[in-house]
Formats: sequence, C-alpha cells, structure tokens
Amino acid sequence: MSSILIRGGTVVNADQAFKADVLTQDGRIVAVGPDLQAPAGAQVVDAGGQYVMPGGIDPHTHMQLPFMGTTTMDDFFTGTAAGLAGGTTSIIDFVIPNPQQSLMEAYQTWRGWAEKSASDYGFHVAVTWWDESVKRDMGTLVQQEGVNSFKHFMAYKNAIMCDDETLVNSFSRALELGAMPTVHAENGELVFLLQQQVLDRGITGPEGHPLSRPPVVEGEAANRAIAIAEVLNVPIYIVHVSCIESAEAIARARARGQRVYGEVLAGHLTIDDSVYRHPDFATAAAHVMSPPFRPKAHQEALWRGLQSGNLHTTATDHCTFCASQKGAGQDNFAKIPNGCGGVEERMAVVWDEGVNTGRLTPSEFVAVTSANAAKLFNLYPQKGSVSVGADADLVVWDPTGSKTLSAKTQFSKGDFNVFEGRTVTGIPSHTLSQGKLVFVQGDLRAQRGVGRYVKRPAFNANFTASKLRADVTAQTAVKR
Amino acid sequence: MSSILIRGGTVVNADQAFKADVLTQDGRIVAVGPDLQAPAGAQVVDAGGQYVMPGGIDPHTHMQLPFMGTTTMDDFFTGTAAGLAGGTTSIIDFVIPNPQQSLMEAYQTWRGWAEKSASDYGFHVAVTWWDESVKRDMGTLVQQEGVNSFKHFMAYKNAIMCDDETLVNSFSRALELGAMPTVHAENGELVFLLQQQVLDRGITGPEGHPLSRPPVVEGEAANRAIAIAEVLNVPIYIVHVSCIESAEAIARARARGQRVYGEVLAGHLTIDDSVYRHPDFATAAAHVMSPPFRPKAHQEALWRGLQSGNLHTTATDHCTFCASQKGAGQDNFAKIPNGCGGVEERMAVVWDEGVNTGRLTPSEFVAVTSANAAKLFNLYPQKGSVSVGADADLVVWDPTGSKTLSAKTQFSKGDFNVFEGRTVTGIPSHTLSQGKLVFVQGDLRAQRGVGRYVKRPAFNANFTASKLRADVTAQTAVKR
Amino acid sequence: MSSILIRGGTVVNADQAFKADVLTQDGRIVAVGPDLQAPAGAQVVDAGGQYVMPGGIDPHTHMQLPFMGTTTMDDFFTGTAAGLAGGTTSIIDFVIPNPQQSLMEAYQTWRGWAEKSASDYGFHVAVTWWDESVKRDMGTLVQQEGVNSFKHFMAYKNAIMCDDETLVNSFSRALELGAMPTVHAENGELVFLLQQQVLDRGITGPEGHPLSRPPVVEGEAANRAIAIAEVLNVPIYIVHVSCIESAEAIARARARGQRVYGEVLAGHLTIDDSVYRHPDFATAAAHVMSPPFRPKAHQEALWRGLQSGNLHTTATDHCTFCASQKGAGQDNFAKIPNGCGGVEERMAVVWDEGVNTGRLTPSEFVAVTSANAAKLFNLYPQKGSVSVGADADLVVWDPTGSKTLSAKTQFSKGDFNVFEGRTVTGIPSHTLSQGKLVFVQGDLRAQRGVGRYVKRPAFNANFTASKLRADVTAQTAVKR
Amino acid sequence: MSSILIRGGTVVNADQAFKADVLTQDGRIVAVGPDLQAPAGAQVVDAGGQYVMPGGIDPHTHMQLPFMGTTTMDDFFTGTAAGLAGGTTSIIDFVIPNPQQSLMEAYQTWRGWAEKSASDYGFHVAVTWWDESVKRDMGTLVQQEGVNSFKHFMAYKNAIMCDDETLVNSFSRALELGAMPTVHAENGELVFLLQQQVLDRGITGPEGHPLSRPPVVEGEAANRAIAIAEVLNVPIYIVHVSCIESAEAIARARARGQRVYGEVLAGHLTIDDSVYRHPDFATAAAHVMSPPFRPKAHQEALWRGLQSGNLHTTATDHCTFCASQKGAGQDNFAKIPNGCGGVEERMAVVWDEGVNTGRLTPSEFVAVTSANAAKLFNLYPQKGSVSVGADADLVVWDPTGSKTLSAKTQFSKGDFNVFEGRTVTGIPSHTLSQGKLVFVQGDLRAQRGVGRYVKRPAFNANFTASKLRADVTAQTAVKR
Repeated sequence: MSSILIRGGTVVNADQAFKADVLTQDGRIVAVGPDLQAPAGAQVVDAGGQYVMPGGIDPHTHMQLPFMGTTTMDDFFTGTAAGLAGGTTSIIDFVIPNPQQSLMEAYQTWRGWAEKSASDYGFHVAVTWWDESVKRDMGTLVQQEGVNSFKHFMAYKNAIMCDDETLVNSFSRALELGAMPTVHAENGELVFLLQQQVLDRGITGPEGHPLSRPPVVEGEAANRAIAIAEVLNVPIYIVHVSCIESAEAIARARARGQRVYGEVLAGHLTIDDSVYRHPDFATAAAHVMSPPFRPKAHQEALWRGLQSGNLHTTATDHCTFCASQKGAGQDNFAKIPNGCGGVEERMAVVWDEGVNTGRLTPSEFVAVTSANAAKLFNLYPQKGSVSVGADADLVVWDPTGSKTLSAKTQFSKGDFNVFEGRTVTGIPSHTLSQGKLVFVQGDLRAQRGVGRYVKRPAFNANFTASKLRADVTAQTAVKR
Repeated sequence: MSSILIRGGTVVNADQAFKADVLTQDGRIVAVGPDLQAPAGAQVVDAGGQYVMPGGIDPHTHMQLPFMGTTTMDDFFTGTAAGLAGGTTSIIDFVIPNPQQSLMEAYQTWRGWAEKSASDYGFHVAVTWWDESVKRDMGTLVQQEGVNSFKHFMAYKNAIMCDDETLVNSFSRALELGAMPTVHAENGELVFLLQQQVLDRGITGPEGHPLSRPPVVEGEAANRAIAIAEVLNVPIYIVHVSCIESAEAIARARARGQRVYGEVLAGHLTIDDSVYRHPDFATAAAHVMSPPFRPKAHQEALWRGLQSGNLHTTATDHCTFCASQKGAGQDNFAKIPNGCGGVEERMAVVWDEGVNTGRLTPSEFVAVTSANAAKLFNLYPQKGSVSVGADADLVVWDPTGSKTLSAKTQFSKGDFNVFEGRTVTGIPSHTLSQGKLVFVQGDLRAQRGVGRYVKRPAFNANFTASKLRADVTAQTAVKR
Repeated sequence: MSSILIRGGTVVNADQAFKADVLTQDGRIVAVGPDLQAPAGAQVVDAGGQYVMPGGIDPHTHMQLPFMGTTTMDDFFTGTAAGLAGGTTSIIDFVIPNPQQSLMEAYQTWRGWAEKSASDYGFHVAVTWWDESVKRDMGTLVQQEGVNSFKHFMAYKNAIMCDDETLVNSFSRALELGAMPTVHAENGELVFLLQQQVLDRGITGPEGHPLSRPPVVEGEAANRAIAIAEVLNVPIYIVHVSCIESAEAIARARARGQRVYGEVLAGHLTIDDSVYRHPDFATAAAHVMSPPFRPKAHQEALWRGLQSGNLHTTATDHCTFCASQKGAGQDNFAKIPNGCGGVEERMAVVWDEGVNTGRLTPSEFVAVTSANAAKLFNLYPQKGSVSVGADADLVVWDPTGSKTLSAKTQFSKGDFNVFEGRTVTGIPSHTLSQGKLVFVQGDLRAQRGVGRYVKRPAFNANFTASKLRADVTAQTAVKR
Repeated sequence: MSSILIRGGTVVNADQAFKADVLTQDGRIVAVGPDLQAPAGAQVVDAGGQYVMPGGIDPHTHMQLPFMGTTTMDDFFTGTAAGLAGGTTSIIDFVIPNPQQSLMEAYQTWRGWAEKSASDYGFHVAVTWWDESVKRDMGTLVQQEGVNSFKHFMAYKNAIMCDDETLVNSFSRALELGAMPTVHAENGELVFLLQQQVLDRGITGPEGHPLSRPPVVEGEAANRAIAIAEVLNVPIYIVHVSCIESAEAIARARARGQRVYGEVLAGHLTIDDSVYRHPDFATAAAHVMSPPFRPKAHQEALWRGLQSGNLHTTATDHCTFCASQKGAGQDNFAKIPNGCGGVEERMAVVWDEGVNTGRLTPSEFVAVTSANAAKLFNLYPQKGSVSVGADADLVVWDPTGSKTLSAKTQFSKGDFNVFEGRTVTGIPSHTLSQGKLVFVQGDLRAQRGVGRYVKRPAFNANFTASKLRADVTAQTAVKR
C-alpha cells in the first residue's frame, strides 16, 4: 500500500483553485481537504507556496512513428518519460494504418510498441482509406478496445490523405458509434501544387516549406471539415490549429452553436516562421513540421482562442527526428521528415507565456493542458481532475521555479529543442503518475513498461453537433 | 440535526454528470457517491430516473422594487418562495439608490426589505451618480458588506442613467476593489429621442415600446461599455442581453481575449415582439420591459450564445406589476411600468427549450442556470455545485414531468404570466434550500425570513480583463 | 441610316443620374445631353418622367439547354425575345461540354444554336474535365473566340462535377489567359449523400430538394473555391449566391482585399423555400432549381450584399421546363429537371423590391442589372453604359408603370412563372436593341436571328486577385 | 480663350481606362477621344505613356487653422499651391466655430481666409455646440451657401467635443437638409482619462500620445456614431479612419446595408507608431496628430478597406506646425499641437504603395483619390471625372517618374515632412487647374487668389442611410 500526502499547496482545478492537502493511496486520490493527516507510511510532499494540479494530458503525440521513410527518435518509453519530466502524465498517440492496411492490424502493432510506456496512454486511430472492413473495424475499436476518436488527414496527397467521400463515410460512422472525428486540416491538393511551384521557382531549402503550406490552405480545410460535420451533425475536433484562418473557421462554427473543438500546439503558440529562414540548414530543417510555424500575428490569435474558449486543448504533435534524419530533405524541403518535439516542455511554455503574462488564470491553465482533453476524449474525471476517486496523476507546480530549455539538458531523445535557450518561470517540482513520485526536483524516476493503456468509452446519446434536433421529416411532411 | 439522503439520481454538475446519491446534513452536502447509507433519522428522497442538480441562481431580480411611481407585486418573501417552487434557491437582487442618495443608506433600506426572504440572497448595488462619497461607499460595500458587483444603467435619461464619465469612474473603482461592473446596455439618449418620435407619430400604445428601443440602441451601449472596460482593463458583465447586436459585441470582445460576460433572460429566449401588437392593452402592456422582447431571429442568436459560451447566465429580471399598475401607461407607452416575472418559470423554460431540443446538455443547463452565476459573482462552490461542503441548495429534476404554466397556478404574486399556456416538460420534483425540503411535488413549504444574506467576497489579484499585462511604461521608455 | 432620339428622360448610369436626351444612330449612341435635336428621319421617343438606362445584361441563362434528359423550353430566340420584353438586351449563356467532350466542339454546337437569337449574346464555357486538350482549347477560346470566362460545377457528382484537382488546373490556366473563373458552389459529395439520406427517410417529393442542398453545402463550396483562387492569385466570380453562408464567404474574402465577385438571382432575392411544401406537385416541382430557394432571412442577406457592394450582379439562371418535363421526378425529387425562368421579369422584380423599397438608388440598380456585369466580363462601356459610342441597347423605364406577372401573359415559353401574381411597379416602356425599338409599351417586336455574338476580350496584366504581388522568391532568399 | 490638348495618354476614370486625347477650353473639358485636333492657339501636352486623370480632391485639410493656441504654417495659398504640385486640384477644408460662436460668423471668417487660395475649395462646417441658432444656421449654410456636410468632434473634451445629445440633434438636422454628417471618431472621455493616467505614470514625451489614444477609443466612437446614424436613418462619413477597430465598425454597418463611408489618410496608410519613440523630441513630436499613427497591422487593414470598397476616400488632414510650435508640448505630450502635412505627397504615396504593389488598379486609384470624394460631397462629375463638361482639373501622371520626398524640396511650408526620405515612383508631370497648367515637370505656377469657392448642393430625396423605408406606423397599427 503506497500513499502520498501533498501538503500545503493550492489545488487548482479547471473550475476553481483553493488551498487544500491531497492524499493518494494505491494510485488514486482518496482525500482533498484542509489539514489532512498522513497515514502511517505515507510519504509527505511539502507543496507550500506551490500549485497542485492534475497532470498534463498531451492529446497529440507520435512516439516511435515510422514516417517519411524513417522512425522518430523517441519511443514510447523515452517519450512518455520526457512527458513525466515536464508534468505530463498521459498522452494520446496515433495509430496510422497505411492505405489498404487493416485498422485492427495497425492497432495491434501500435499497442505492442506502446507496452514500454512509462505513463498512461491511449490511441486515436487514423482512417486513411475506406471500405466495409474499415467501417467494421471502427466498430470493434470503439466497442471493444476503448478507442473513441478517429483521425483524418486532409493533406499528404498520394499517401494518407482522405478525400471528401472518405471523410463523409468515416464521420457518419463515428457519429453512429459515439466517437469523435478529428482532422489534420490542410488542403492536400493545394499543398501538392504549391510544393511543385515553389520547387520550380528554385526554392529547395526549408524556407520553401511555409511557402507551400500558407494559412489559407489550412483555413480552407478546417472550414470544409467543419461543414461536413455540421451536415452530418457530428462534433469535430481540429488538431494543431496554427493560424488565424482556421481559428476563425472554428469560432464561426461555434458562434452558430456547433460543437467544434480546437487544439493548439505549444510550438505554434510561441515560435514564428522566421526559423525557416535561419541560415543553417539543420536549424531550419529541425523546425519543419506541418502545419508550419506562422508569422507572429497568428500566435496572438491562438492565445485569444484559448482565452475565449474557442480553442480548447494544448498539445505538441511530439514527433522528433535528428539532424541526420532531417538531412533527407537537404535538396528538397518536401522530403524533410515533418516533426518537432515538445512533450517535455509544453506545460512550462504554456504557463510562462500564458499565466505569467496574464492571459490565463491557473484554472484556465489546467483546463487547456489537462481537463479539457480529458473531457473531450472521455477520460474525465479519472484524468484531468484533482478530486476524490481520480487517478493520482498529479503535478506539483512551482510558479517561481525557473529553467532554461535546451537540447543539452532535455530528457527527450534527439539533438534539437525548438525552445532552445528559452528561460521559463513556472516548472514542475514533483510529478506523480499512478500515485508514485516519478519526477522530483529534476530527478526523473520513470519506469519502463509501467504505463497502462487507458480505454476511453464511447460518448452517449447526447453526442451530436448539438444543433436543434428537430425531426426534419415531420417538419416537412407534405400532403399531396 | 437534519439530514436528507437523495438516492438513485444522476448528479449533474457543470463539468460532468454521474449516478450518485447525495447526503446532506445541517444545511451542507456531506457526501456524494454511490450507495450512501442514510444516517438515523435522515429523510430519504427517491430520485430514481431524475437529475440532482445545484439549485438555480437567478442573478437578476427586483423584488419589492419602487419603480416608476409604484412598487412591484412580489416582495422578498413571495418572490423567493416562487423561486423555490421553480427550483431556484438563490437570487441576486439590486440596491438602486436615487441620484444623490447615499449608497450605504440605500443598501441598508434594501437589506431591511429582504429580511423576509425565504431563500438565500445577495445584492448588486447600482451606481447612479458620482462623487467622493460614492467612491468611498463602494469600498465599504466591497470590504465590509460582501457586495462584489455594481450595476450601471446606460438608459433612463433624466433618472438613473449614468453618463460616460460616471461609467469610467465607477469601473475604475470596481477594478481597484476587485468588484464586477455590470451594465444595463441601452443608449438612453437615443431611447429618449425615439420615445418622442414614436409618440409624435401618434403611436401611444404598447406597440410603441419596442419601436423606441430597437436592437441597435442596445448594441451600441453594450459595445461602448465593453470598450470602456477594455481600456480600463476590468472585466464586465452585461445584464439581459436581448439581441443579436449586443450578443455580437460580446462575442467580438471575447474573441479578442477580453473577459466579458453576458446574461440572458428566460423571456428573451422564448418570447418575441409580436406580444406588443396584441389587441388587448393589458396583455400587450404586461409584456413591457426593457430591453423589449425582440423579433424571433434574436432568440436563436441568444441560444447560440449560450451554446458557444459567449453568453453565460440565465436570469429573469423578475419585476412584476399587475394590470392596474401597468394601466398608468394607458395613454403613453413610456409610462407603463417596465417589468415582467419569471423567477418561478426560468428553470423549466430553459430546460424545455434548451435541453429537450438538444441545444444544451444537462451539464450545460447547470452551468447557465446556476454554476456560472456562482462563479462570476464569487459564490462558487458554496453555491452552484453538488459537492461535499457545498450548501445543500438542491433541486431534484424530473425530466419527464410536465406542467402548463399559468398565472392561475403560479405561486408568484401578480395577475399575469408571460409564459401563459406554455406546457413544459422537465420540472422540479423537490427543492432543497439550506438542507430542507421546501418544495415537494407541487407542495411549496417556503418559510418567511429564513433566507440568509450571502456575502460575496471581492475577486483577487487575477481580476482583470485579462489582456497581456505588459508594463507599458517599460515598453515605451524613450531616451531623449 | 436609323436614328432615335429619346427626349426628356433622366439618364441613369451606374455613377450618376442626370436629365438629358439620348440620340442613337446606326446602333450606337451618338449624343447624350440637354435639348438634343432630332436629325431628319429620326424617330422620337418621349421619355418625360421616365428613366433612360442601359439595357439589362443577364449574365446567367441557359437557353435551349439539354439537361437531365430533356431540353429547356426557351430556345435562343424565344428566350432573348422574352429578355427584350423585360428590358434585358444581352445575355451571357453557357457552353457545357460533356466530360471527355472537346470544348471547341461543344462551343461550335452552342454557337450554332444561338444564331437564332433576337438580342446580343456571349458565352461562358464550362470546364467539366481536364486534360491537355482542355487546356489548349481554353487558350483558343480566349484568344480567338472572345470567351473570357469559364464555369465550374462543384456539384452534380458523377456528371459534370469538377474535383479540386480540375479546379486548380483550370483556375491556373484562366489566370494565365486573363479569363475569369466562375463556379457553381455546392459541395457535390454532400449533396449526393443527403439526397440518399432524404430519400431513405421516405421523402421523395419536391420538399426533399432543399433538404438535400442546405445552405452549408453552398457556403462550404464557395469558401473552398475562394481559397483556391486566393492561393492561385486569380479573381473569381461565384454564380447564383443564394444564402448567408456563401455571401459571408465572399464578404470575408473581399474584406481581406481579394477580388471576389458574387451574382444573385432575382428568384433568390424574392422567393422563399415554402414553395417546396406546396401541396400541388407541379407547383412545388416548378420551383426546383439549384441552389434551391431559401428561408426568408437569406433574402435580406442577399439584398444587403447588393447594397454593400459585396455582391455585384443580378441574373436569373433562366432555364425553363414545363410541367410534363418536371414530372420526370414525380417519384424522386432528385430526378426533377432543375431550372426556373426569370429573364423577362428580373429587371422589374429587382426594381420593385430594390428601388421602391429604398434599398437601391436608380444608379445602383443600373450597376447590379447591367454595368457591373459589363465590367466583370469586359463588355464595358460598349454595354452597360449610356454614353457616346456605346451600343444603343437601352431601356426607357417607367417608374410608375405597373404590371402583374403571370405565365398567362409572359412572352417566355413554358407554362409556369415563379413570380406568378406578383404586381410590380416600375416596368420598361421601351426597349432598344442595336438602336432599334424592339419593345414598345407592351408590343414586342423581336426579330429572330438579328442578335450578334459579342466577343469579350481577355483581361490585361492587372488581372489578379489583387493581393500584394511581392516577389516571394526574393523575400525568402536564404544564404546557406 | 485658352485651350489645352493632352495628347497620347491613357485616360483613367473610376470606371474605366482607355487611350484618348483630352481637349480643354475655358476651364472645361470639351472633348475626350482618339486623335483630337488641337484648335488654333491651343497648347499641346504630350502625355505619351502617361495617365490622364481627374485632379486629386483632398476632402480633409486645415489650412491657416488656429488650433491649440497657434496657427498652422500653411495658409490657403501655400497649402493649395502645394496640393497642385502634388496633383491635387481641390480641397475641402473645415470651418470650426468655437462653442457658442455663430456658425455663420465662423463661416464668413474662413471664407475670407480662403480667398487667397490657388485652387478650388469648399468647406465642411463643424457643429461644436447646439441651440436653435445652430439649427437655423445649418439651414442657411446648406440652402444658400453650398455647404452639404457638417463635422462633429467626438474627442477634445472641454473644447470642441460634441456629446451624444448634440450628435443626435445635428445628425437629425443634417438628414432634414440633405447634408452629410461627418465625425472625428475618438471617445473624448476615455482620451481625457488616459492622458491623465499616462502623465501620472511619468510619461510626458510624445511616446505618451498613442498610449492615450489607443485604437479601441476610436473604434468605440465610430461604432457609436454609426449607431446613431442608423437609428436616425442618415448616411455618415467617418474621417481619418486609422485602425482595424473603426474600419471593422464601418464594414459591419455596410454589411447590414447601411450607407457608411470611410476616409483614410495617406499617413495612416504608410507610417507606423514607432515614430513616437524616436529619440529626438522634434521628430517624434512632428508626428503627433489624432488619431495617432498605429502599429503596422493597422496599415494593411486600411489598404484592405480601400480594396474592398469598405473605405472610400484618401485625404491628409493637412495641418502643419513647425518645430517651435510643436515645442509647446515639450513637457507634456498633450500640449503638442496636433497635426501633420501631406496635401502635396498624398497622390504619389497612395500610387506608390497602392498601385505599384498591385493593391489598386489605376481606376481604383482615381476612385479613392478623387471620384469618390466628388460623389460623396456632391461635386461629381464637375470634379472627379475626365469627361466632357467637367472642370479641367487634371493631372498627367507619369508612372515611371520618381522622386524622393523631403522637407528640403517640398512646396508646403513647414520644416518637416512625415514622408521624409521615401522614394516614390509615380508622380505628376503636369497639373491643370481650371484649364491652366499650374505645375509642369517640377515647375509650380500656382497663382494666389485664383481658386474659387465651390458650392456643393444638398443631396436629394434618396438621401438616407438606405434601409428599408417601410412605414413603421402602418406596420404596427394596432386595433384596440
């Protein structure tokens, strides 16, 4: 029987913050209140002057991903361990079948890879093609495997891109099953054209990457996916919203009462597109991901989205490649493996730029780093909440602690850090996963293979895009 | 020692719904969980198939208000009792000093009137004029009396209307004190002109009322108040948002990251302006309130505001006058005492039109009828939450129960019901106030004078309009 | 030598209105000014108290169209004659090749059909498929045949629908050639799905038509086409904008400085979707066209678009089928031939609802019925202007004249009139085409075959979507 | 008899551009067409490769203005002469009565000052206070003096600021008279407060100026003025729109069909607020004007407004003070006389940044520098048009000519040029005023006192904000 008492902190949940002690036992929170007594044998953590928050949930990572001919540096162990070091206690990763590959087969492959995880995890499954077997496998995944979200790539033509017909089929099926459709919103047809045009102009370096994926390409796709969801009356979640155009598409839909949700990456909130014009290829290439980093004005719009409640979660799209892997695109930016890290730095970067600047309150920070993801993917209040009965996945947050982020000191694998040199104030002092101290004042105690796969049940009968569910048939009955 | 066990229901909070029993003791909730045991002597309420929700909070009522030469029908006892019958367990009423009257004097007068209340209550205090004594009294009210919100009328020229200078002064003071400024947004100068123009055209009946207060008049004032709040960096709450124009002003500001909150009335959500053209004067006049009911398209916009999170609370502006009082404006619509009822019907009307239609989930219903008001006026989680430690102000909600609303059967005083004849599905079966059953299956057991004044503490240091709080001075330091 | 002097009227152009006489000779306007003298032999038209305006241009008609297995009732003679009776002196019709059909072959076919026209005319040519021959034919059409606009159908899956790849190719080619791409904006994939769903619900009558093509389906497609045009930097013209959603997509793009133009039909401005629920099948079916008529609120939005300058032209999509033709969809609304009339009524309907209500000034009326279409399709000032040197295509407009529109009295072929029973004030008293009086006080003198094909030259080097044409290459040159 | 033939140019009007010669005689244009013959004695100007455009109209200048205790450097002669050097052939200046001063008296004073003008001119008259005499004088000015526009300052508290009551009264009177109300939109109450707050923080230098007048202060006032105009159903013209907030207020109103017009200054289009942080006081102070220059993003929004047709005219607010005058605010930015120059540079700056960049076509340039102002203030087509009968106020524009703007070489008085060092391509080669060559290849031949006061007639019965003018009385007649 293991027990930890976190004493003297300010508990921060998405709806309120209050001074209280927190007691865990056997991986669960068993008490939250003033002046709790430590049971015999309990460890005591002194949280005086610190915040006690639900551990972060990163709903968008790619550990051990085979992509563009290579595999990411961080596997499920090193990646989740890095997360724990940063206060993130759960990830939701992606199963990405090849077109024509069975969803169940791909799912089993990823489940195998993930067994080495140090923290709890779940999976979104990508729908990259369509036939009756895909439809059937979606049912199996939802009903038997606890997958309640499916991913659709609107970019990557001639690879994993969905056409509108597949979107329509898969979204319809998701509604039927009570599962959340999610999209990577970029118009793949336009990206394909622009890559050619940019290369034809003789621009082959990383500076060509953002030119081939301008914001309008993302805004169009977001708008289209939202329209399809509206017609089908299914909620939708847009991953890595990076620009004004797609943030506004979401805001417009929400203002119409549609249930649309948006995710934003720590990188898009803080890094601008000047990185692609860095004279050093390796540095520029290390920032190549899709959607790309954007001109500065977009960052402010993303923050405003989080403040106003039009955007809901923060994630990282953690997907690390080292310099030699990135080198595959030395002569053609379109061949640079897409991806950047962040699972370790997200919480601190969002706190520093969000809370320290007055944009977010601590409770709003918890909402956008943990609680909202838990609610949207049906993990709440098991995850995302400091409350009796919840999993003891916690972070003790030191708002005065400071750290300079760097590839040299990171736990994550890889030779690059997109936040290199940034000094943040507000860092975890302790992380608890499953009721165990896994990170203490810089000391990472992650254990390979202790992470559990977390089933996420389907949503219930209220799961629709939430328009007026009038009976259209009745309304329009015409006597002739 | 009194104790009640509510067994077998589905607890609905703003963040989640789950099956659980709820146990109260001595006016507080002491347990929420599965299979609770009833202590000896506890009453047991069977909530099988029903929802157990925090009692409603109506943040906008006027009980016993002296206004336009007469006094409203419902006093603090009959009004709060009617609220309990409808599932509303707290109200926030308004102290409205006359120009030049001391705020403290008016406050004491209202406190006296309110002693007969059957449920808990608080007060917003109106700032209708400005001098140093007003500034000082605002401080006393916040720091000693638990008032954390001040109201400003932008309409009612030559009476209680604030000019921009007073708005600026009072908002600045509110920020300093950690109190929420609220506004009744209508451009009083334009209303004054339009009333003359409409009367000059020979329109003297109630149909002239909406002509003299078109939506643009409200939209302008809302936009102006929000702009002043933005400049001063203070949050702001707009009462009774009734139209697209002001809902959009709020949405625009929120999209910029400003902390702006909007309240909408049950009446504005469900009643349109055709009522003013009713051939019967008494019926038309009974609907005269400001802002007036609007053309139908505005209703949908208000619902969308609640769905999208751009509007936050539902209220009633409960302020009832009987036919003979309304008759004062027989020859001039501008003299009809402004006000309609609703404290008793709000919860059922919002459920019926909101939840039954699929616009809102039960959790969202709790947010907009109770939890959000509690959070915005710093009563949370004492009010607005079904959780251990919270006040035992609860409603057991029967989603299949049905009722036809009518003046004939209402508990509220007065001879009119703006919802007359509307059949709603979803009604309270039991209401608990302070841990006592005060309404049981149609039987109202309200007690005069048991309601308590609830102090609402000031907001803390994070209380700003939440823009980037950069040090402007530092930014712009210029060496010359 | 023929000459006509129009005396005593008020000349109305898009930029101004002024009292002046107008003299024509040999098909051209030769003088505009006060107190002109009639040359010997000139006819004199007394325009006292009337307006003298450029004849209407209907930029969207389908005369003699083979469609959905049948051919429209009006051929190029009867259709253009009906136009003259209504004050419309030019049409731009559509060449619609079948997929795989040569553009030049289709073009020659349509040119042949059109030789019987009574008024001047031009052609847009549809791009319904793509290969090198299409690309080459587009060049021939622009450079040799005076076609400067190409049409793209985003609906009609499995028939003439363009996918995004074809849109991208064709828009790129249009930019190269200085030709205007135009789109019918409806997401064909969603229409296809919805038609099935509606039929599956047992709705087979015309009331199913609008259910299968809701506004969001149009708004999505408009937004997508505009995004593609923005990326390619080509202007774009959206035909028959029928709803708020697409009007707003256009307004958003224009607010970003993009050159986007919108056309609206007389029918969409004045008829709502209740027609589809008419108990008589023939009546309901007679209104089936795509996009369908919309709920009333959309009409106001379209008028606002014309008033604000976000929408530019009015047209009709004149495409008439008789009752027996419409009967093909007796058991399945999706098989009802799509199309309605209007070429004869457009000017009067737009005047009556636009000018008489105060929405438009007479000059704005000229802009939206004639001058703007002339400018956008490069016919100006030959058409669309009362000025020396312009074609003598004129209408003398009687603002006090009145008429009740009806199938019984129309010149257009067919047995139905979507404006049946509507009494309009403001009708043509005289129409001049090529300097001849072709309609005089109700007497139609149209002549078969006198209409001329009008070549429309390509646009010049300034023809772009008008964004900042910065040299992206230069901007992003990176030294490595 | 004087006559000039401009040969070989491309005539550019707002609606079209075409190759033609232009012949003037006795101050008017008498022919526009190909291959015109020069009458005996006519001067010939070779415009080969150049554009022939209507002379610029600057609708916002302050020559010889007594303001903030001093008088501007340029009087009506030097100011209008500088305009001619830049291709501007008319100005509309402002009569600004002191509060309580008779409008007619002030008007006569300004008329006297203006007699020395070198170019034609007109006046807007400011309404700075209200009583019956003001109302009467407005009538006299419109009906007898050819003033059809009135200005209202919403800023400058305790000086010339209008309160809402005066706005309502004056706008109502303007509608009655057929005159255009115009506003300087800044919330004077907020400016007053912010000036104090900024000074209290110890910021006394010019960098405090923009801090005391942030964009929201302008946006609020614009929105309010537009709302008042909407209620009264009168068109409105917003002067010097400088920021996103007010541009959007205008765009929103226009999208609702309201007739709202916006003016933007050459300076706001091209200069950003970094100038206020210049280390040299004189340089920073030389840029002090209201509204202030804004952060860069606002410039792009203003250009987009011109491109989309939501903003209509370009002006300068030419109002020059020299360094010693600006020095009055050495210790307090609020005392720096507000004003900058530009009448000489506007046309070239707008061409260079507007046409050379692809934002505007030459015809659009004519619209925003001349024709639109002529239309909005009822001078069209006498001014603003190259057409037979129009005034021979012309500019021959050399699109390849280049010049570096500088105080050293300017014709305008004063020791500063806000465009200092900017090299523009596109400059006038010849300017004609009243049919005389007044500027030829850098040689300014302006003559003192030849400028004429131009009467501007009232607008006609169609002059309303152009909403649906339904008879509200009829609509709402209620039988009781």
